[in-house]
Amino acid sequence: MQLRHVIVLTAAALGTVAATAQTFKPEDQIRYRQSVMQVTQRSLGALNGMIRGDTPYNKELAVKHAETIANLIAWSGTSFGPGTDKGAPTRADAKIWSEPDKFKALYDKHIAEAGKLPAAAAGDANTLKAQFAEVTRNCKTCHDDYRSREYRN
Amino acid sequence: MQLRHVIVLTAAALGTVAATAQTFKPEDQIRYRQSVMQVTQRSLGALNGMIRGDTPYNKELAVKHAETIANLIAWSGTSFGPGTDKGAPTRADAKIWSEPDKFKALYDKHIAEAGKLPAAAAGDANTLKAQFAEVTRNCKTCHDDYRSREYRN
Repeated sequence: MQLRHVIVLTAAALGTVAATAQTFKPEDQIRYRQSVMQVTQRSLGALNGMIRGDTPYNKELAVKHAETIANLIAWSGTSFGPGTDKGAPTRADAKIWSEPDKFKALYDKHIAEAGKLPAAAAGDANTLKAQFAEVTRNCKTCHDDYRSREYRN
Repeated sequence: MQLRHVIVLTAAALGTVAATAQTFKPEDQIRYRQSVMQVTQRSLGALNGMIRGDTPYNKELAVKHAETIANLIAWSGTSFGPGTDKGAPTRADAKIWSEPDKFKALYDKHIAEAGKLPAAAAGDANTLKAQFAEVTRNCKTCHDDYRSREYRN
């Protein structure tokens, strides 16, 4: 019975993954990840303004921006799957799909560091500044290598 | 001295608002609000899957999606300012700018109801379902009236 239970659970889990993968067409995944970049960029800008002192440090708002960034970076990690290299205009470089393990390792690191941003924002401008630098460094690393040559930083 | 202090503070606050308004060109605001729609739609879809039972109810993930939706709806509320009716392709109807008070009242209600979504998600699928219905009803109300006729629901 226990083995059967495990098999049923595994089938259910696989079913969920398959359903999720089927739900989103390549063009939807491309649009989603581009939207994530736009929204993330805006929230990073809001945090940068507080770090630079252009706007007063507002801890509650900073944490909200940090959480949004962390969530969206995590969720967008699965939006570069097989077949999402075309279907809509994209700046994503073909290398993403020719060296998926290397790309995934970088994205996993990005997700992990972004995940630390809310706690850093809950401190003060200085603790946020350090982790913000880490996150934006990871943004740049990926953009340098995996954005089509004409769009690289 | 106190009066002078207040004046300086007010000037600083106005300066911040002016700087923020200047920072974003109409095309950037249009792109931002369109990206917010895309990202919000995806997160609403994730919540809907849990409500319908297509995916197991994952409270931690549901709260994260709910928080992201609440934050983005709140932040996008200022992205329909004067002059953002053109500058990039947009489905936003001209009525937004011809009856701004009515539009703002609807958006404020939308922001308030979306703000209750994280607490609803922290309950169970049933508490989430009720507030989810409220939020998506507000989405539809606005899309029915303020999206260009050819794109309305």
